[in-house]
Amino acid sequence: MSQTAQAAERDAKAGVGGKTVAVVGATGAVGAEMLRCLEESSLVTGTLKAFASERSAGKRFKFRGKEVEMQVLTDDAFRGVDVALFASETDISKQYVPIAAAAGAYAIDNSSAFRMDASVPLVVPEVNGDLIKPSQKIYANPNCVAAIMVMALWPLHRAGKLKRVIASTYQSASGAGRPAMDELEEATRAYLKGETYQHKVLPHPYAFNLFSHNTAIGDDGYNGEEQKVVKELRKIMGLPDLRVGVTCVRVPVLRAHSMAITAEFADKVSVDAARAILAKAPGVKLVDNREANHFPMPVESSGQNDVLVGRIREDVSDPTGHSLALFISGDQLLKGAALNAVQIAERLL
Amino acid sequence: MSQTAQAAERDAKAGVGGKTVAVVGATGAVGAEMLRCLEESSLVTGTLKAFASERSAGKRFKFRGKEVEMQVLTDDAFRGVDVALFASETDISKQYVPIAAAAGAYAIDNSSAFRMDASVPLVVPEVNGDLIKPSQKIYANPNCVAAIMVMALWPLHRAGKLKRVIASTYQSASGAGRPAMDELEEATRAYLKGETYQHKVLPHPYAFNLFSHNTAIGDDGYNGEEQKVVKELRKIMGLPDLRVGVTCVRVPVLRAHSMAITAEFADKVSVDAARAILAKAPGVKLVDNREANHFPMPVESSGQNDVLVGRIREDVSDPTGHSLALFISGDQLLKGAALNAVQIAERLL
Repeated sequence: MSQTAQAAERDAKAGVGGKTVAVVGATGAVGAEMLRCLEESSLVTGTLKAFASERSAGKRFKFRGKEVEMQVLTDDAFRGVDVALFASETDISKQYVPIAAAAGAYAIDNSSAFRMDASVPLVVPEVNGDLIKPSQKIYANPNCVAAIMVMALWPLHRAGKLKRVIASTYQSASGAGRPAMDELEEATRAYLKGETYQHKVLPHPYAFNLFSHNTAIGDDGYNGEEQKVVKELRKIMGLPDLRVGVTCVRVPVLRAHSMAITAEFADKVSVDAARAILAKAPGVKLVDNREANHFPMPVESSGQNDVLVGRIREDVSDPTGHSLALFISGDQLLKGAALNAVQIAERLL
Repeated sequence: MSQTAQAAERDAKAGVGGKTVAVVGATGAVGAEMLRCLEESSLVTGTLKAFASERSAGKRFKFRGKEVEMQVLTDDAFRGVDVALFASETDISKQYVPIAAAAGAYAIDNSSAFRMDASVPLVVPEVNGDLIKPSQKIYANPNCVAAIMVMALWPLHRAGKLKRVIASTYQSASGAGRPAMDELEEATRAYLKGETYQHKVLPHPYAFNLFSHNTAIGDDGYNGEEQKVVKELRKIMGLPDLRVGVTCVRVPVLRAHSMAITAEFADKVSVDAARAILAKAPGVKLVDNREANHFPMPVESSGQNDVLVGRIREDVSDPTGHSLALFISGDQLLKGAALNAVQIAERLL
């Protein structure tokens, strides 16, 4: 047994029956947010373990006032761990999620590695939380757009049976990680000083600019992000035939994703009914004040657990009156990533 | 006759048969761009006249190397003027456009004052330039979103008969004028310094934020900008029954408007056919490189006369295969305003 593993067992014992939670990829934008969510959660009753790349190993940070040291991930890192939250790159997740599960930990993975795996539930607790059960060790956390969008679509689907979704996204820098957030700030600062800036994280200039999502385009013209949104919405809601057309766009916003959605239903859902449904939907906050021109926007959804939904109106382009238009804004790092993973873990323990 | 009018006649005569062009609202973002377009156009063969508010009257600027003085608008300002381009607020246009026309000038108005007036053509020359004729004195220049969007929709409509449009916009600061562009820069500069900034032009914080278009919301939930887009697209294309659902959003971009569009056609238009049509459409530039992930974006459409169109793909949410998805970016101040007005004038003279 390695020194790390011995320490893990010692730590677990020191928790005196408390729950040990591990965060893999703890230094990234999502990982850091997971640590923040865990500080507020009642999940960690024992030890918190944080794993990062070799570059960050040894760094120390405070968790609930106690110092925690970043460790390098090893094959026996998960001994004594009850829940492992993965905020890692896909290849790291592919390698270590099965190892964590084999070691007896619940593994909740934020990468796309297991999302479309038939044996792995893709979970947003408010939608398909019934898939969370003790015998299931591995869970996938959805793509950030899918997770945020489904929060508004699911309650409406239960009222009117969703047939078709057409969506355009306004995605923030955080979806491409901390370096992209830094690039947005640096590029903008340079622009305002009249200086040139050579972008190195994203493929296009980002200061006061927007561009099609930077994932590879498939034969049908849809990029990787759009393909994920379609497949994942279908899997989370259990609607394999749902028709979804989405355009994913990166905008110069730091950390919240917004979406303009047109949703067609089999049964008419009136604007008033939709408002009433969304007003009491868990994890949703209705922000729909026409008089004050106050609707969901990133400056208000950033840092919020709730997904903001508003601009609810009947889509005038659908003569049947069975379509609604709405606008959503949700924190990409919270409901779009870290918060949702922690919520899955909370239901497990 | 006032001194201004006498000067106007003298100026017109000095042009030795040359054409005299006036710009009303010459100090605003659109007016300044009109002056730039006129410098490049062969339109002004005689005198250029510039009218501004009293605050700016007397200011001097260079036009083709010669000094021009901003004048205050008066009832006889249009004597000797061949074409008057109005980049003014709606109330100024309402008052002075008829005065200009009565004085014998062609009046091309960028405000919304006359756009839905049945006796006034709403013109995008590439679409309905046939409405430009000597006997017609007053022309309306469309809303910037409608003008840019119709550049892509019209050539495709001619191929497949447009039935329905669902669009989400990514509108720049310039659509709200120079002060909004300044506010975006100032608010962002303050944000990056960690300083607070009290917004005064737009109703919401603008640094790294986006929000629903700041026009009043009607009973059906659509805001003023969205209502304009629907009505104006129908009028320009002569399609009174076209079904249009649009969501207008202000994003932190300085001067180009972008749009994600889903367009349904009566007859199927294939992706290849759409590409071929748009590649040769006047005023359109096809930017649709899937391999390089290179599509229309504001940083490349700003300052361009052409409207950039790309991301052309079959909308997978329409099982009939009769819908296309596309992404557009066009300079709000050029094709969305100043350039289109100058193009109308060029066809007149």
